[in-house]
Amino acid sequence: MREDGGRRRSPRGARGGTRRFEALGPVDNPYPPLDILSPDALARIVDRAYRLLEEGGLEFRSARALGILKSHGADVDEPTQMVRFGRDLIQHFVGLAPAEFPVFARNPDRNTLMGGRRINFNTVGSPPNISDLTRGRRPGTYEDLCNLVKLNHALGVIHLAGGAVVEPLDLPVPTRHLDNVYAILRYTDRPVIARAVSRYRAEDAIRLVAIARGRSMENMAGEPSVLTSFNVNSPRRVDEELLDGLMCFCEFGQVNVVTPFTLAGAMAPVSLAGALVEQTAEALAIVAFTQMVRPGVPVVFGGFTSNVDMRSGAPAFGTPEYVKATLAGGQLARYFKLPYRSSNVNASNAVDAQSTYESAMSLFAVVMGHANMVHHGLGWLEGGLTASYEKTVIDAEMIRQWAECLKPIDVTDDELALDAIKEVAPGGHFFGSAHTLERYEKAFYQPMISDWRNFETWQEAGGKTATERAHEVWRRLLAEYEAPPIDPGVDEALQAYMSRRKPELMAMQG
Amino acid sequence: MREDGGRRRSPRGARGGTRRFEALGPVDNPYPPLDILSPDALARIVDRAYRLLEEGGLEFRSARALGILKSHGADVDEPTQMVRFGRDLIQHFVGLAPAEFPVFARNPDRNTLMGGRRINFNTVGSPPNISDLTRGRRPGTYEDLCNLVKLNHALGVIHLAGGAVVEPLDLPVPTRHLDNVYAILRYTDRPVIARAVSRYRAEDAIRLVAIARGRSMENMAGEPSVLTSFNVNSPRRVDEELLDGLMCFCEFGQVNVVTPFTLAGAMAPVSLAGALVEQTAEALAIVAFTQMVRPGVPVVFGGFTSNVDMRSGAPAFGTPEYVKATLAGGQLARYFKLPYRSSNVNASNAVDAQSTYESAMSLFAVVMGHANMVHHGLGWLEGGLTASYEKTVIDAEMIRQWAECLKPIDVTDDELALDAIKEVAPGGHFFGSAHTLERYEKAFYQPMISDWRNFETWQEAGGKTATERAHEVWRRLLAEYEAPPIDPGVDEALQAYMSRRKPELMAMQG
Repeated sequence: MREDGGRRRSPRGARGGTRRFEALGPVDNPYPPLDILSPDALARIVDRAYRLLEEGGLEFRSARALGILKSHGADVDEPTQMVRFGRDLIQHFVGLAPAEFPVFARNPDRNTLMGGRRINFNTVGSPPNISDLTRGRRPGTYEDLCNLVKLNHALGVIHLAGGAVVEPLDLPVPTRHLDNVYAILRYTDRPVIARAVSRYRAEDAIRLVAIARGRSMENMAGEPSVLTSFNVNSPRRVDEELLDGLMCFCEFGQVNVVTPFTLAGAMAPVSLAGALVEQTAEALAIVAFTQMVRPGVPVVFGGFTSNVDMRSGAPAFGTPEYVKATLAGGQLARYFKLPYRSSNVNASNAVDAQSTYESAMSLFAVVMGHANMVHHGLGWLEGGLTASYEKTVIDAEMIRQWAECLKPIDVTDDELALDAIKEVAPGGHFFGSAHTLERYEKAFYQPMISDWRNFETWQEAGGKTATERAHEVWRRLLAEYEAPPIDPGVDEALQAYMSRRKPELMAMQG
Repeated sequence: MREDGGRRRSPRGARGGTRRFEALGPVDNPYPPLDILSPDALARIVDRAYRLLEEGGLEFRSARALGILKSHGADVDEPTQMVRFGRDLIQHFVGLAPAEFPVFARNPDRNTLMGGRRINFNTVGSPPNISDLTRGRRPGTYEDLCNLVKLNHALGVIHLAGGAVVEPLDLPVPTRHLDNVYAILRYTDRPVIARAVSRYRAEDAIRLVAIARGRSMENMAGEPSVLTSFNVNSPRRVDEELLDGLMCFCEFGQVNVVTPFTLAGAMAPVSLAGALVEQTAEALAIVAFTQMVRPGVPVVFGGFTSNVDMRSGAPAFGTPEYVKATLAGGQLARYFKLPYRSSNVNASNAVDAQSTYESAMSLFAVVMGHANMVHHGLGWLEGGLTASYEKTVIDAEMIRQWAECLKPIDVTDDELALDAIKEVAPGGHFFGSAHTLERYEKAFYQPMISDWRNFETWQEAGGKTATERAHEVWRRLLAEYEAPPIDPGVDEALQAYMSRRKPELMAMQG
């Protein structure tokens, strides 16, 4: 047969129907990490990050944080709120953070691990807009948020869920965070990511998760169950609201995912090495600070270095620079023995080839850089300004493909198939051989949306693109969605908490 | 700044214009190869491949080949044309093949290396159909073939070119191979891939390349300048026409790229390990045979194991199985100390997200499997049944991104930018800093078709997808195409050779 394979006509017609997708289960990476920095290059980045903390420092805009920093040996300049750290101090406190830790879900079957070789995929977080193929791009609503959580649950590839999968702009700001966490707890059963800007939002999230898990706040302190993505106001500034949320998470033993957003050419130097120095310094300072607040509290080292388009100033994602920064970030996290967070990103305005190749490059870097948490794993579009239903489905397909690639090749005698090969005559084929018939149904990865039928059959069936097929998949999955079970008493308790808190919060903001 | 980056409006409007693309230059892979087989798993596959050659063997449908095999110690059963090989015999002859060798182009600046860490990208080869966004899918013509060669030349990412970039179905079969090679020699300046089914086609290709390079046929023997993809008639059969071409290439010191096409579930067992056993056995037997014909002749170990869709029997490409087989194939090639050929493939019917993620997965495997030759590097669609103008451009973008990812991160003091970071106030930005202004124009990868403008600007400019932008790029590149220089005397000699041969070939076939 020639390389083109002589495509045959499908005997089955259109695929799909009412197929359900099994949950992916834990994904552990058997491949060695791809170290793109030489030991010397790594040492130079680490040294400059230390020097930046020693000679420049970070601005902490919180009197309470400054007090903690000062009492733990940092060099605090109170008039400017600038804090400098000796490298010994950084090494000591960063060394107190665990290299890996368990993460608890309301469904214990969904508990996971943060660190080591584990990869945890998460939904997209916080885009203000939502889009789909028929209705286009529009401001996010709470209905869209709930739908995206349901869709992610049905697609079955997430290991974590949240924060605001899309921003519910139709809900009042003071109480929105309650509804966001509730949607995660109600419509899926994975560990929760919550937005934790301000202490009250952080504490509400932890209390809701404690109710869902049937745990007291004291229990929660030893059981990391809520994570929050903590962005530094790069360069080198941390606002009070952010620090308040961070300290609350530390006090209750929950997980800050410390992620400087160091866009090279904008909030960081235009050179990749410089952006990595800044990212590393900022992350180390904040990680050290979490350990001052509560020694041993779980924390994640996050990397989010990409570049801007120097012709327009627009952020670019999934670029070669993003790939290299992501791989280097993973190497730095391993150097500091911390779990690593990265993201599945792109800057495309459409669910097209660009969004796909930028995401594919991101996922390569995420997997080979040994990210333990992949935030924005599904549905991110337009540099994070939009969550897309179709992109969510396409990302699920790409993530499932990666998970399949991480399974080893089975080389048992049956699979090596020596006798089966010898039984087929030269020039023959294996379609009807016993070895094939025994295992063909489960032999290969079954795609969600890939269409491998021949051109004529595909064309007769409407000639739909992968994005159009993704549209059909999400509509079907939402129509057939079944919520994971929840104890009615727990659901009532969650709603009661919200009913009590909402008037308080409205009054507080009023 | 939040993670969504607060996208700014582009001050420049639409991008592109008359930008030219510099040739990519040699691509060397600094990353360690990704070994997905444990040493034990590798040994088991190699052992079963040897056993298949010892106990089963291959059918060689050529009396001349059988004579050569017999005289070099293979166990030839003349009535059935089955040939068995002891593993010592295989090891001895495979060991004679060079681990790497130079490849010569008509433009010496385009000479390259086959082996080691070098990656050579090639055009698509042999699809019967051509497609583009406005004219759809249609049978290939010579005009399309020439246009694709020109487009590949202008895109500047190929290191090799050919065979029939699309099948020119409007040309007579007996003489088509001459026009195919001529188009490669005339419209680009890279080393030539030629189809070499039958001795006369093989020899014509070599003679045309010798003319283009100003070399005698004796000179050519020491200067590999033509490569051909040699597909086994898997399972375990090699036809006479193929062997005639292969022996001719060996005699003139040219390069057989030995590539069993072992589609698991069709021409190979449904198990990946079994398909790899068959691929390895077939490749080893043919590589050993090349060394019997001419010891030391350059040869490439090719892998083309993918799977079929077990629901339809259609071939699938760029799947997780393809990725794993490609990585394992590279590991096997390194074990046998042979250069490795793989491919950039997909089975999509449209230039959409599916064609992109399947290609992206293929390119990951190709790069991390350390393929030295990437056949079908640009433009393959629909499992190889169609060459696409738009896919050619998108693949060029993806290949350039990969090449950029393979460049190390510069960690010189200037790039580490410690002083530049310290100069920017906390919470400030780097847009106007001296460090940025000095280097922003060349700081980052410049894409061919990625559009990073904000949604509103993109929408006002027509809201074009990446595939639509690729359409614009190829039309512009063809309109602006300039052929690489060729000595008029050489061109005349090529045309004279073809004018003499064409009547001979028509008479021979008549």
